[in-house]
Amino acid sequence: MNKKNYRPNNKNQKSRHGSQYKGKNKSARESIYQSPNMQIVEGRHAVREALLAGTRRVREIIVSDGLDTAPIIEDIQRLADELRIPLHMYAKTKFNSLTVTESAQGVMAKCEPLPELELEDLIDGVSNPFILVLDGLMDPRNLGSIIRSGECAGATGVLLPKHRSVRITPTVAKTAQGAIEHIPIATTSGIPKALSKLKDLGVWTVGMDVSAQIDIYDIKVATGPIALVLGSEGKGLGRLTRERCDVIAGIPLLGATESLNVSAASAIGCFEIVRQRRSNGDSE
Amino acid sequence: MNKKNYRPNNKNQKSRHGSQYKGKNKSARESIYQSPNMQIVEGRHAVREALLAGTRRVREIIVSDGLDTAPIIEDIQRLADELRIPLHMYAKTKFNSLTVTESAQGVMAKCEPLPELELEDLIDGVSNPFILVLDGLMDPRNLGSIIRSGECAGATGVLLPKHRSVRITPTVAKTAQGAIEHIPIATTSGIPKALSKLKDLGVWTVGMDVSAQIDIYDIKVATGPIALVLGSEGKGLGRLTRERCDVIAGIPLLGATESLNVSAASAIGCFEIVRQRRSNGDSE
Repeated sequence: MNKKNYRPNNKNQKSRHGSQYKGKNKSARESIYQSPNMQIVEGRHAVREALLAGTRRVREIIVSDGLDTAPIIEDIQRLADELRIPLHMYAKTKFNSLTVTESAQGVMAKCEPLPELELEDLIDGVSNPFILVLDGLMDPRNLGSIIRSGECAGATGVLLPKHRSVRITPTVAKTAQGAIEHIPIATTSGIPKALSKLKDLGVWTVGMDVSAQIDIYDIKVATGPIALVLGSEGKGLGRLTRERCDVIAGIPLLGATESLNVSAASAIGCFEIVRQRRSNGDSE
Repeated sequence: MNKKNYRPNNKNQKSRHGSQYKGKNKSARESIYQSPNMQIVEGRHAVREALLAGTRRVREIIVSDGLDTAPIIEDIQRLADELRIPLHMYAKTKFNSLTVTESAQGVMAKCEPLPELELEDLIDGVSNPFILVLDGLMDPRNLGSIIRSGECAGATGVLLPKHRSVRITPTVAKTAQGAIEHIPIATTSGIPKALSKLKDLGVWTVGMDVSAQIDIYDIKVATGPIALVLGSEGKGLGRLTRERCDVIAGIPLLGATESLNVSAASAIGCFEIVRQRRSNGDSE
């Protein structure tokens, strides 16, 4: 792992070498780099979108010395200048000692945290909600990839459980390529309860699972308010979550491989909703 | 990176610390672990499928001491026993020193290489070809994920360029979750030339690109022999590859994010072909 010895400015936080995190997996260790007051964003697209979206304040940009002159780097420099955000250039070794993801592509930003949202924030004032409910993902790359694909598909919000789920770590931010700045992300203390609330609010809840009785192509409810519910890697939907969904839909598997990766399944589900909405003359 | 000091049984190969690979990226370094005579497969699903598929001989299974008693581990032990493949158990530290992927999940196999196939091998005797042409992918996780989704969608073959592309490394094998054992993978010296040949053989070539004029939902050729062509991360389809495709199709992007990840795009494309074939009454 390319983890470096950056320490967030939070004195109550133990260092990554401290016993609290010893032996924990990557995502658990990564989460210590996010403090209540600051989030690290790394990667060219992720940093540019943080600047462009304006969802939260960017406090500082740090770039590595000796970067190529890519247009996206020029964008970042120009935006930092326009927004009067301090931009510092560090030698490559120093820069690499600050980053936490596998490859920060020479750019990182210290940002205020994303707004803390509740389920209601994903519904209020949204004309045709299309919400991704992600119950218990553990891999930050999967979460980042799902948020990226969802945002591309015009999803209007993401709902995560407060516990037993990867949070918005630097790897999630980087993998999402800036999508986390553009799509509202809320948390809830319980996914099954949130699904009941969504139903009360007139949102159809469609769980995706390999053991489904019908194909995602046949759900016929995609044109209205919809929540697409995905479970964790390996285990899929939890029992309670599954029971609370209006429909359980699957993707037909025609090969020998047991299942699709959850981020592939999510991308297929999201764009099937796009297709159904489009063929119904509603491309919102 | 979690690269360990395993060295393949090939005296001409320099060690990973040798100058030949110094400073090269992950996939370049990973490829040294594959010799012409042996390929390493890591991960529970990948190893089980190598045993089940029987596409190539598995020479040895190595498991880590102290594994949980998951059914998939029992499957692997039973299969190794039935097929009379030596299974060795090593202490965790020793095991970890042998593995090359980020997490081998306590199981690795030394296998004969996959068969070396040509383009023709993907067509001969295949009733309704559905080929994934992957021009210049660099990330082994993307390649593994694309092969996994493609195999799930019933794709009948994968075509890779001989050069300037990630090869079937242990990370590809692991990410593909065993799909590399079930789908024929061929290489070609030039993708544009291969596309011309595919056209001559009656296969429609559909390139996927963000700058497409039509949506993948409207291609209307998915029910016959088809090749879905995807370009590299970041750059998309090369100019020559693009020019040789019969159709260039895209996925509608409804958000602020610039593009989909290539493995998400591939999954969406593959399962749109599945949907079109199904709605045409042909689910092969």
